[in-house]
Amino acid sequence: MPAPPPRIDLATDVVRLTRQLVDIESVSRDEQVIADAVEEALRPLPHLTVTRRGHTVVARTDLGRPSRVVIAGHLDTVPVNDNLPSRLDEQAGILHGLGTCDMKGGDAVILKLAATLTAPVHDVTYVLYEAEEIEAAYNGLRLLGESDPGLLEADFAILMEPSNAGVEAGCQGTLRVDVRTTGERAHSARSWRGVNAIHGAAEVLARLHAYDARRPVIDGLEYHEGLNAVAIRGGVAGNVIPDECVVTVNFRFAPDRSEAEALAYVRDFFDGFEVTLTDSAPGALPGLDRPAARAFVDAVGGQVAPKFGWTDVARFTVLGVPAVNYGPGDPMLAHKQDEHVEVAQIVRCEQQLRAWLTTTDKEQA
Amino acid sequence: MPAPPPRIDLATDVVRLTRQLVDIESVSRDEQVIADAVEEALRPLPHLTVTRRGHTVVARTDLGRPSRVVIAGHLDTVPVNDNLPSRLDEQAGILHGLGTCDMKGGDAVILKLAATLTAPVHDVTYVLYEAEEIEAAYNGLRLLGESDPGLLEADFAILMEPSNAGVEAGCQGTLRVDVRTTGERAHSARSWRGVNAIHGAAEVLARLHAYDARRPVIDGLEYHEGLNAVAIRGGVAGNVIPDECVVTVNFRFAPDRSEAEALAYVRDFFDGFEVTLTDSAPGALPGLDRPAARAFVDAVGGQVAPKFGWTDVARFTVLGVPAVNYGPGDPMLAHKQDEHVEVAQIVRCEQQLRAWLTTTDKEQA
Repeated sequence: MPAPPPRIDLATDVVRLTRQLVDIESVSRDEQVIADAVEEALRPLPHLTVTRRGHTVVARTDLGRPSRVVIAGHLDTVPVNDNLPSRLDEQAGILHGLGTCDMKGGDAVILKLAATLTAPVHDVTYVLYEAEEIEAAYNGLRLLGESDPGLLEADFAILMEPSNAGVEAGCQGTLRVDVRTTGERAHSARSWRGVNAIHGAAEVLARLHAYDARRPVIDGLEYHEGLNAVAIRGGVAGNVIPDECVVTVNFRFAPDRSEAEALAYVRDFFDGFEVTLTDSAPGALPGLDRPAARAFVDAVGGQVAPKFGWTDVARFTVLGVPAVNYGPGDPMLAHKQDEHVEVAQIVRCEQQLRAWLTTTDKEQA
Repeated sequence: MPAPPPRIDLATDVVRLTRQLVDIESVSRDEQVIADAVEEALRPLPHLTVTRRGHTVVARTDLGRPSRVVIAGHLDTVPVNDNLPSRLDEQAGILHGLGTCDMKGGDAVILKLAATLTAPVHDVTYVLYEAEEIEAAYNGLRLLGESDPGLLEADFAILMEPSNAGVEAGCQGTLRVDVRTTGERAHSARSWRGVNAIHGAAEVLARLHAYDARRPVIDGLEYHEGLNAVAIRGGVAGNVIPDECVVTVNFRFAPDRSEAEALAYVRDFFDGFEVTLTDSAPGALPGLDRPAARAFVDAVGGQVAPKFGWTDVARFTVLGVPAVNYGPGDPMLAHKQDEHVEVAQIVRCEQQLRAWLTTTDKEQA
């Protein structure tokens, strides 16, 4: 008899709930089991309307509130690296294991709030989605925005990416280009008959080496751009003058530039060289001027940092929904073999969101 | 019944003999069949003493002449590339196929001379050896020099490497170094927390780009050095600041530098960077001041060019034997898919060597 599918017990506390989620292996493209468990746990709840798309589960309240917020988290993880099942160090207050930080602690907060907040002050759309850790083509949030944009309509969105239980606003955009130099092959014993494409890349690296990063301040937050070679390759054989060298450059750009503006900057930077765009994603403005964002920030303590890394908040921005990153876990631990999370951060996120969603604006003011 | 092993017919002309050799596939490390055929063809000849070492065959006259010459060629080829069996274009006078140029035309000349010159004016040591096209560890000429140095003792040596049936004297040395830069990994969204090793290689490429080649004249021949990046690699992932970049540099140096002097030059050139020697082989001085070399050059027409590429002539130089490259075939066609040779060059090489080996010094003078 096969083992029964795992179940999620929403009655338990948020830390135990995190462990349950961590212990259901859910590497990208293998999220069926966890999505089934999530759907099965949420569907019986009478105050929620549950929609399933692929392995993405959406649960909404529909209380006729004047405002609606989205709270979203992805269910997938990077590949297992001998770091499952979870292990709780009670003395240190640390939960170890794949996904504890990125981002099943945040998912547990979402599920706990969804199960228990029967009458939040804002209507809430809880989104637990698939395939964030891989190519955008599979990204559940992106697919949902295309198939059911109405399900993501909101006044404000919170993405529970690890941010040490603090608010990280906006995100920088990212694009990659290949900067290519060409030459002419020749035997290295008669090198003057060829043209060395690797030598031709000297100027490309010299410009990168001399690059001075822009650090614009947007909504009071200082972003920090970066233009970096992330790979270089060239060479045919140990006795051949190479006829091609390719430098792969990653530009991380502040959210006051559009993707097109960022690419124009890079093309200008490498003026005289062949530049091919291979990959691009927009940044997201912090949007802290929007009342919904402001109210949330005030409710959780008022501190905001800029988000340097690219996250799915940019997908909300594209939909016209201001969004912030806010979740338990140190982002520097994401994707590490020894990934872990302070359980106190999970608890704090749940408490702060619960307080915000149960306090009327008048009370907050 | 298995097919009988191929036989070599030494009574045929040198062009047909070349075809026979070409049509016995003999990629490096797979020379047993061709070495067996060569040994079987030479061993019955009463004027020769045949020695076999591995898949290297040595055949010597022992006529008590005052001088001895070595004539050597390798039996192996680079891998088959849809270019076997041989194909003779009679109208154009071109023989096509793997090894036609590098260097079974030369091998055929050796075999034809060995079979027919029963009383050459110099004693001759004919050497047909294995594994020239791969790592030096397997090189049959090198192994023979170690196991039986007496078999290579001579006043002069001719290596039948393709040189368009002209004399190419000496050879340039070659060495390879890895020039390595290091940095510190970081997520590319927070690149200022790391140190980019690829950017750190800018100066390495800038120096190479500005390199000005030395062109010394030795024994009247102008050599031409070359210092080139033949490979570059670096990069961890598309979102990681790379902590290592390695530039593989090939230095081709004129034979007036020793290997140690050449390495010292390269270390000085890359002063301030980590330089690791991976590979080194000495050059060979042209040695045209030696009477045996001079007499040979005069006998075959007096024209001499410098050899830029490294060849096994350097192994003779190490043994104190002056040596030249002289063989049919355009060296630019070696290792090409469409390798071929002008049959007239094979014929000319045989005729010129035959004339030299049957004419006394007095007659030559």
